Amino acid sequence: MSVAMTFKANETDAMRLAIDASAQALAAGDMPFGATLVSAQGELLLVAANNQNSAADCTGHAELVLVREAQKKLGLAALQGATVYASGEPCAMCSGAMFWGGIRRVVYAASQAQIAQALGGPLLPKTCAEVLTGASPAMQVDGPLLGDEAYAVLRKFASA
Amino acid sequence: MSVAMTFKANETDAMRLAIDASAQALAAGDMPFGATLVSAQGELLLVAANNQNSAADCTGHAELVLVREAQKKLGLAALQGATVYASGEPCAMCSGAMFWGGIRRVVYAASQAQIAQALGGPLLPKTCAEVLTGASPAMQVDGPLLGDEAYAVLRKFASA
Repeated sequence: MSVAMTFKANETDAMRLAIDASAQALAAGDMPFGATLVSAQGELLLVAANNQNSAADCTGHAELVLVREAQKKLGLAALQGATVYASGEPCAMCSGAMFWGGIRRVVYAASQAQIAQALGGPLLPKTCAEVLTGASPAMQVDGPLLGDEAYAVLRKFASA
Repeated sequence: MSVAMTFKANETDAMRLAIDASAQALAAGDMPFGATLVSAQGELLLVAANNQNSAADCTGHAELVLVREAQKKLGLAALQGATVYASGEPCAMCSGAMFWGGIRRVVYAASQAQIAQALGGPLLPKTCAEVLTGASPAMQVDGPLLGDEAYAVLRKFASA
C-alpha cells in the first residue's frame, strides 16, 4: 500500500497541519499526535490534537478527539465520506471511532512501528488496516505520508 | 472460549447491571448497550450506558463512556487491572478504549453476531478478541454470559 504511492499537494498540506498539531500537543504536555479532517468535497474542516494528559482522558487520542469535536461543531453529516490525516498510524480505538463517525479514508504519517519505537509503553499490535478489515462500508487506509517529519516529533518526545 | 465456561454469581450480578443499563439506554432513545466496571479487587465501581444519541456523540458507546467517566470520577489508577462486563461484545473502538484505560479483562453478553442480526447498520467484523490479539499487556476476553438476556433487549430495539 505504501509502495510508490503518490499524494497530492493539498494532502501534504493537510498532513503538515496534523504534524504541527502533534508538536503543539507535545509542547502542552500531551502525547505527540495530531489529526486533520478533510470533507468528502476536499474542504479543510478541523484540526485536533491529543489531549489525554491535559484533559485527563485516556481516550483523548487525536483522531478520536477530532471525530468528537467535529460532530459537536459541524454535525455528523459533515463527516460522512471524509478523510482523516493522522500524524501517527491510528490505533484500534481511533480506527473504530473514525469508522463510526462516517470517515471513509485515513492517511497516516508515522507508522505503528515508529510510534512503538519512539514511545514504548503498552502496545496494541493490530494495525489500523487489520482492525478495519471487512468493515462495511469499507474504509481505505493509506500511508505513510511525511512519515519522517512526524517521526521527528515523536523522537522529541522520546528524548524529552 | 465460551464452551463450558462457568461464571461466579457476582459476575452474573455485574452483567445484569450492564443489561439493565442497556434497557435504560433504549428507553432514553440511545443504542441498547450498557457496561459495568469491577475493580481488580472485585469492587463494583461504575455502570454506564450508551449515550451516542442523547449526547450527540458517535463515540458514546457504553464501554468508552464507562472508561471516560471512571477516569473522571475515580482517577485512572482505579481502572488498572479491572474487568468490564459489557452487554454487547465490544467493537474495535471500545476494545481499544478499555485497553488504554488499563482494563485487563472484558466479559460480554450478546455476541457480535447477535448485535449485527438485531441492529443491522455499519459493521466492523473483527471481534474484540481479534482486535486485542497480541496486546501488551494482554487483555482477556470471555463470553457469552447472559447472552440471551442481552439479546432480548437488542430485539426490543429492532422491533421498536
